[in-house]
Amino acid sequence: LQGLRAAQQRFAAERDWGQYHTPRNLLLALVGEAGELAECFQWKGEVLPGLPGFSAEERQLIGEELSDVLLYLVRLSDACGIDLAAAAAAKLRKNAAKYPADRCRGSSAKYTRYSQQDTGAQG
Amino acid sequence: LQGLRAAQQRFAAERDWGQYHTPRNLLLALVGEAGELAECFQWKGEVLPGLPGFSAEERQLIGEELSDVLLYLVRLSDACGIDLAAAAAAKLRKNAAKYPADRCRGSSAKYTRYSQQDTGAQG
Amino acid sequence: LQGLRAAQQRFAAERDWGQYHTPRNLLLALVGEAGELAECFQWKGEVLPGLPGFSAEERQLIGEELSDVLLYLVRLSDACGIDLAAAAAAKLRKNAAKYPADRCRGSSAKYTRYSQQDTGAQG
Amino acid sequence: LQGLRAAQQRFAAERDWGQYHTPRNLLLALVGEAGELAECFQWKGEVLPGLPGFSAEERQLIGEELSDVLLYLVRLSDACGIDLAAAAAAKLRKNAAKYPADRCRGSSAKYTRYSQQDTGAQG
Repeated sequence: LQGLRAAQQRFAAERDWGQYHTPRNLLLALVGEAGELAECFQWKGEVLPGLPGFSAEERQLIGEELSDVLLYLVRLSDACGIDLAAAAAAKLRKNAAKYPADRCRGSSAKYTRYSQQDTGAQG
Repeated sequence: LQGLRAAQQRFAAERDWGQYHTPRNLLLALVGEAGELAECFQWKGEVLPGLPGFSAEERQLIGEELSDVLLYLVRLSDACGIDLAAAAAAKLRKNAAKYPADRCRGSSAKYTRYSQQDTGAQG
Repeated sequence: LQGLRAAQQRFAAERDWGQYHTPRNLLLALVGEAGELAECFQWKGEVLPGLPGFSAEERQLIGEELSDVLLYLVRLSDACGIDLAAAAAAKLRKNAAKYPADRCRGSSAKYTRYSQQDTGAQG
Repeated sequence: LQGLRAAQQRFAAERDWGQYHTPRNLLLALVGEAGELAECFQWKGEVLPGLPGFSAEERQLIGEELSDVLLYLVRLSDACGIDLAAAAAAKLRKNAAKYPADRCRGSSAKYTRYSQQDTGAQG
């Protein structure tokens, strides 16, 4: 992630594009790319892991859209002054504490409730 | 990114949650997190780089939402069988070829057009 | 739609909230609500028309999220100075011309291609 | 809204496209259109009501993207078996009860907090 952040800083500096990279501009660009990613899956019905039945062209496009979301996410974090790698590591630890494996195993409570706001864990 | 991918594989396996992590389930979860990120900025008017005026609590929340988008993005890529790090590196190279620095410098054509589908570069 | 637009103008005026209702603020609010709507469906796997198996509480929540998207959409259109009802009627006519029924019937070309930018089905 | 719903039912029936209009397919299509709407505003910095400085071509495109979101929203509601007009009217009443005008007037508490989950402004 640090490599991507540096590469994008260099990319923007070489083109004098930093002036456009304000947080809300980058956020809307990220939303746009997430929308393009959604379009890759919109008429597909249920899709299995590994994307069986998708063409090489479709896989290529999905890889590019996933990348576009990532690149804007890294750039937005940078514009916010937030260390994304550190934040993600902290969030993983927080999730592990929120959903203890020994209490959650085999339980789908998180996934059978409609809201991700619930506390998930149960006895 | 490989470390995040492995950490999430372990996290899901320990909880037997892999069964829920189909591509479209993860995609909708990613869209949900992008929406929560948008909510952090929704009533702010223009926001400057570094988020001046944001409270520590707001910065913390934004860091968590950025992380949630990243974590689902890594997990979705994995469910698609796509190597996100390789795809992002390829996309950076493609962008560099599409927007040559010596022709784009000082030009904002990409940013004064309403569509990101345009070719951007000009003499 | 005109009734909703007027109701929202009155609602905002009575609270002196019009100052916050700039186009990009409302757009991010709409994105946030679309994300909440996505969360209602995120761990569901394929869902059939009519939402069989959804609880009354889930249906109620989905109705509210659909409404939130609509309300911000109407308010955003108003902030943009765009007549949404007229625009939607024009778009329906444009779609009918783009996808002639006698040439598209039974063809799923639009839906078997990954991009909605393609020209659609032909006989 | 009832007119739009009926027009879209007819449009899909004439093309035998109802088979593709499952709730999650339509939801992802809606997310895609919201992303395209976001792209219209992504490099604009702060935008004022009425869209001063936007070209006629840009306004036309924004009107079409707003319409696309509306059309999929109406169609998704129909696929869910939810009466969108009734749900929106109920949501307006709920919002009016949640944010009483005489206590909220002049207060921006809802808008100076980062979360729309808070209970809003108090006198």
